Amino acid sequence: MSDEIPSADEVVTTADVEAAAERLADVVHRTPLDGSTTFAERSGAAAVGLKLENVQRTGSFKIRGAYNAMAQLPEEARERGVVAASAGNHAQGVALAGQLLKIDATIVVPEVTPAAKIEATRGYGADVVVEGRDYERSYEHALELADEESREFVHPFDDERVIAGQGTVGLELVEQDPDVDTVLVSIGGGGLVSGIATAVKAHDPDIRVVGVQPEGAAHAKPSLERDKIHVLSEVDTVAEGIADARLLVKTFAVVRERVDDVVAVSDADLAVATALLAERAKTVAEAAGAAPVAALLSGAVDVKGERVAAVVSGGNTNLTDHAELSRVGLERLGRYTEARLELAGWPTVLGDVTETVEEQGAELNALERVRPMAVDDLNRTPVRVGVEGSGPDHLRDVLAALDALDDVSVVRHSLDAEVRRENEYS
Amino acid sequence: MSDEIPSADEVVTTADVEAAAERLADVVHRTPLDGSTTFAERSGAAAVGLKLENVQRTGSFKIRGAYNAMAQLPEEARERGVVAASAGNHAQGVALAGQLLKIDATIVVPEVTPAAKIEATRGYGADVVVEGRDYERSYEHALELADEESREFVHPFDDERVIAGQGTVGLELVEQDPDVDTVLVSIGGGGLVSGIATAVKAHDPDIRVVGVQPEGAAHAKPSLERDKIHVLSEVDTVAEGIADARLLVKTFAVVRERVDDVVAVSDADLAVATALLAERAKTVAEAAGAAPVAALLSGAVDVKGERVAAVVSGGNTNLTDHAELSRVGLERLGRYTEARLELAGWPTVLGDVTETVEEQGAELNALERVRPMAVDDLNRTPVRVGVEGSGPDHLRDVLAALDALDDVSVVRHSLDAEVRRENEYS
Repeated sequence: MSDEIPSADEVVTTADVEAAAERLADVVHRTPLDGSTTFAERSGAAAVGLKLENVQRTGSFKIRGAYNAMAQLPEEARERGVVAASAGNHAQGVALAGQLLKIDATIVVPEVTPAAKIEATRGYGADVVVEGRDYERSYEHALELADEESREFVHPFDDERVIAGQGTVGLELVEQDPDVDTVLVSIGGGGLVSGIATAVKAHDPDIRVVGVQPEGAAHAKPSLERDKIHVLSEVDTVAEGIADARLLVKTFAVVRERVDDVVAVSDADLAVATALLAERAKTVAEAAGAAPVAALLSGAVDVKGERVAAVVSGGNTNLTDHAELSRVGLERLGRYTEARLELAGWPTVLGDVTETVEEQGAELNALERVRPMAVDDLNRTPVRVGVEGSGPDHLRDVLAALDALDDVSVVRHSLDAEVRRENEYS
Repeated sequence: MSDEIPSADEVVTTADVEAAAERLADVVHRTPLDGSTTFAERSGAAAVGLKLENVQRTGSFKIRGAYNAMAQLPEEARERGVVAASAGNHAQGVALAGQLLKIDATIVVPEVTPAAKIEATRGYGADVVVEGRDYERSYEHALELADEESREFVHPFDDERVIAGQGTVGLELVEQDPDVDTVLVSIGGGGLVSGIATAVKAHDPDIRVVGVQPEGAAHAKPSLERDKIHVLSEVDTVAEGIADARLLVKTFAVVRERVDDVVAVSDADLAVATALLAERAKTVAEAAGAAPVAALLSGAVDVKGERVAAVVSGGNTNLTDHAELSRVGLERLGRYTEARLELAGWPTVLGDVTETVEEQGAELNALERVRPMAVDDLNRTPVRVGVEGSGPDHLRDVLAALDALDDVSVVRHSLDAEVRRENEYS
């Protein structure tokens, strides 16, 4: 099998990435590489830079590859237009590239796609076709359309021009920090990491490129280990943007030669990284974009004393989802907990509860009188509280102080079940 | 009264700001001025740049003024240390400046200050003294400490060195966009706007400087109109960072000469701006930091065809508060609504509800069976749903489709009561 795989250079060379950079020079933002002392301290790295592709046009790196591919289409192909399948970042990348290059773009999206995302894609002038109960069916329909209408199909990653376009992130990276030791990049289908690895290894072959995948979509590591594309029978992760089941031939060809290692992070790690990116770096990342930072903070990769660049690949998240994920992240850090209390005197004892929480320097974020269950003492009133504090020890003290009140019992709380102690994230 | 007010030049000159810039050169980040096509389109401006002081060290501009003041203390004063009162950004600014300059810093915070904020301040090596039921009492206690221990009191804004330090934001601004027409800056006590106005007017006296205040703390406009410091008897706004009741002598002296206008924004405007900064600019702003963008989007200031810079002054917000404020912002934009439904068949009809929401391309974010009230039909089951869509018209369609189901009635929803139509913000 492995002999059918081309060499990495047959797929994409440094020259291809440099040519892409010229095409993209006046089109995409040169995104910042922002230093983060917080993440350096927590990971033991000498320095951590966040390559913020979430502030790229369309909110992710995808415009780079889409534009680079579409800009190289011959005139006849441009006139016939392009088609792509995506409910996510690739849709907007192709749509904007179409608008800029005056190429008619049709995007096929699955039926479940929210109207807001469809409008965003239409906002760039693309035609949106809703077809298919899931992405696979949309993908097939897009291929059918491409065939019927002789339109170029723009693949989200298995395309050398797309890979070269994504590689321009790597060129910027080594210009912004020529001494970088390790680059962390999330892997879905592998287009971004293939491009970046090609660019940074040309600058210095000793730069370590580490791919990051969610545990629920971790196909690249077994692919490298077996030197054969590993296909997952199912994927299950909160990181929709990288919820792919496999590499394809072109990305596998590049990854096996140019990516040094691949690590996996849990969805809980992604939640923690998303929360800390918002709280410390003040930046909104989608779960897939937070994966490299999750690898850094969870210790999945050892970066002690190194100069590290973590690519925050995108920020296109529904704000509600982002808030939920961040709250879970705080809970995993032991900085938020929900508890069920039983009060011997409703509502009088509420005053004691709020006073105790305040005295302890914690914040009461939620309080709700809930229905008694059979296990409850029926002479007590059950309430659910949400409490925020500075860490698990602090919240334990707060719960102990509540439990010590004459008329209050803490019957259940989420700390023991869910806390992964902050120092596990060092 | 007005004759007791010094001239602006007696308080702070361009030379003072330039001297501050030299002191701060290796200490603070030169924060980016990020272009935003979304905000330009929505406001009719030719260009909008966001000056991102929320990614400044300590998460706000306050380090600039604090460091510039403390760096100028004579040796004896440095040895005795400084004291300040603040539960917010000034606390961290003074604490970090103390750490960098090796000056002992004591920060007095009110009793209600969350442990997390106290730890953040202690993290910079400052001593934190918890004293006072409110900020006024902490402030008095800090003055007492300063007196007793002969420590320099670092005022958050009524200090020429602090004002000059904040002015370095303005110097960077005009370097980053020399052709800027209008600069929007939030006003609490007026330190930031005084410094920025001094810097940008020196570059070009025609640059318009517009201060932005929350409606619940709008003291600067009446102060300018009456040419006399106006003192509010109470303040009431979600923007804690600028919830001040008045200018003081030094800031009034500068504001009256160098600030062209002051506008007010509602807390709802702040919610919308906070949400759109997160969604579009991928940046986390505290409510005070979102005020200039709120002015831009609400139409409080006319910027048609102009090059505008909006200073996002800080990003130190509790993530839970940020999420709540953003959700309210989406609701004001008509992109989120909560509705009370009555179902004729529980739970069978739930399938129709979820299917209808999905068919309409909307997202069901919350669903809860709630207690029947006396006004309800007791042969129906009341549920509360939260629905997200692309705008008020879309959500109206979704609610109408739900109401048209045989077994579902929409008995109440938040759209009519709360929607401020999206086009009011354009």
